[in-house]
Amino acid sequence: MNESVFRIPFDIMYQEFLRVLLKIGFSSGRAAVCARIFAENSLDGVYSHGLNRFLPFVKLSAEKRIDIHAEPEKVASFGVLEQWDGHYAPGIIVALKCMDRAVAIAKEQGVGCVAVRNNSHWMRAGTYGLKAADAGCIGICFTNTGSIIPPWGSGEPRLGNNPVVFAVPHKNGPILLDIALAQFSNGKLQLHSRAGTPLPADGGYDTKGRLTNNADEIKKSKRVLPIGLWKGSGLAFMLEVIAVCLSGGKTTADLDKETTYDYGVSQVFIAIEPSAFWGADEMDQKIEEICAYYVSAAPLDAGEPVHYPGQGMKKTREQNLRLGIPSDRQFWEKIQQL
Amino acid sequence: MNESVFRIPFDIMYQEFLRVLLKIGFSSGRAAVCARIFAENSLDGVYSHGLNRFLPFVKLSAEKRIDIHAEPEKVASFGVLEQWDGHYAPGIIVALKCMDRAVAIAKEQGVGCVAVRNNSHWMRAGTYGLKAADAGCIGICFTNTGSIIPPWGSGEPRLGNNPVVFAVPHKNGPILLDIALAQFSNGKLQLHSRAGTPLPADGGYDTKGRLTNNADEIKKSKRVLPIGLWKGSGLAFMLEVIAVCLSGGKTTADLDKETTYDYGVSQVFIAIEPSAFWGADEMDQKIEEICAYYVSAAPLDAGEPVHYPGQGMKKTREQNLRLGIPSDRQFWEKIQQL
Repeated sequence: MNESVFRIPFDIMYQEFLRVLLKIGFSSGRAAVCARIFAENSLDGVYSHGLNRFLPFVKLSAEKRIDIHAEPEKVASFGVLEQWDGHYAPGIIVALKCMDRAVAIAKEQGVGCVAVRNNSHWMRAGTYGLKAADAGCIGICFTNTGSIIPPWGSGEPRLGNNPVVFAVPHKNGPILLDIALAQFSNGKLQLHSRAGTPLPADGGYDTKGRLTNNADEIKKSKRVLPIGLWKGSGLAFMLEVIAVCLSGGKTTADLDKETTYDYGVSQVFIAIEPSAFWGADEMDQKIEEICAYYVSAAPLDAGEPVHYPGQGMKKTREQNLRLGIPSDRQFWEKIQQL
Repeated sequence: MNESVFRIPFDIMYQEFLRVLLKIGFSSGRAAVCARIFAENSLDGVYSHGLNRFLPFVKLSAEKRIDIHAEPEKVASFGVLEQWDGHYAPGIIVALKCMDRAVAIAKEQGVGCVAVRNNSHWMRAGTYGLKAADAGCIGICFTNTGSIIPPWGSGEPRLGNNPVVFAVPHKNGPILLDIALAQFSNGKLQLHSRAGTPLPADGGYDTKGRLTNNADEIKKSKRVLPIGLWKGSGLAFMLEVIAVCLSGGKTTADLDKETTYDYGVSQVFIAIEPSAFWGADEMDQKIEEICAYYVSAAPLDAGEPVHYPGQGMKKTREQNLRLGIPSDRQFWEKIQQL
């Protein structure tokens, strides 16, 4: 254990977020929900969308780029499909509402699909997959974003990093994949740039068109690598097209014209209720079989056993609950001064 | 144009496939559908799942590993969600039926989701996305397969190549992404191995654990690269879990125990009907805007403009219709002898 790690207990972090949100005018209900989600994101190890993102969230709320009192509104529906307008309310509130609706529809009809436009940044994409899984549903969600990835064959960004989430409920804790479609996020590039360390794999091109693991070179070229090269470029494009077709909202091109990054994104939430097809515990057992086969693969490094998606998060959550959440002291002190 | 390319007109190829399927006992309706899909797969440039795959399909049918007379059967349903058993009927017939059902449900209820177990190989995944798009629906489908990809952190295959398709209807031709989750398919590795040419990008590891674009080295190590490294490994896993949870069918572990590759796979078909949210032509226009922004990115190579997913297929189809379908002469001659 690194002794220099600055740790904050979950409850303290939650209470501090709550205090600040109440002070800047959030209703008590919304403040509690947003404070909990920000603290849980850090608890699960997604620091970039927990503590580290709290100050920008407060700033956007103060500048009214996030409308802390706005109510998301259902604007159209057809069968199990609904279209909502987020009206720039806090992205966490809107996205939780949308996944809640998708789950409620799925509980009645097997599948629910809710698309929303004009939402603020939802912070951690995985939050909404977990929401579905906690309710016993398979959850799938994705968002468009402003462009950071060049289409395959170009050096000019036109594609969002477009996070996508798949979550499946399980009694031992949800199976959760929460990925963005660049090999490394901007946050990760900045981290390695500041630390002067190489990325753990090639993450883009240098200005001469050579693959590199040097974050500074990638920032210079702006040629971030999509996962799977042309495949991730295509995948990011499809998620954008589907998000816009279902939400009627802003495209990546529209977002690129805004002065605030990701101002009014388009998102899709899908919940599927599989329990009608399984007896008690049968699905849990089947998932355990699948996980067991996956982790039975011999590790390349004996100290690093193979993990299925979500397994690492569970360990991080347990450790951070026990020891406190590793935190950036500077961010924390700034929050305390608010 | 390479003068040595052996080309067969679409109609001739279709008629030849039809003749063979009728001869081995297919009903006239099924023979016509399967012959058309095999010929269309080659027409669209997906030769690996067109002409090149026809002989193994005939062989599996003759061996009764594909039951050419079996009928897919709905075994359970809940709202817009249905579970089917393919009963090892021809994969093309079953998968078309499932996407048809998903589309029919979506036309009534906004979204339809059909999962099938015990299906035979569906050949080209994109076929079923195109089917949804032709009906005006967004189509999403995926399948599990026997393992060829090691989980991230291991060298032992435990994951299927798990193709996934996203299709969106458009008046200029569908937007279509049809990808498997290994950077390169086994077919592509074999092609480069036979030709002695390097892959266009790193496609796996050599036996010393170094990334390589040498297909022979990758075949030796069996360490095929998933798209996006740990991200594609996770994505392949999630598609497997979801396909099994919804179909109640075989896992990749089950498939690995079979003596016939991909004997009885688990698949999911989702159709979404977006037209309720758009006026006439409005969605087409919006998609054109998105495509225009994407292809406006300056190409790195002036001779290689940026293409959106599906754009290349349309050109290939038009060219192959005009000039004939580039074909493997040996495969063609063997088919003619049947």
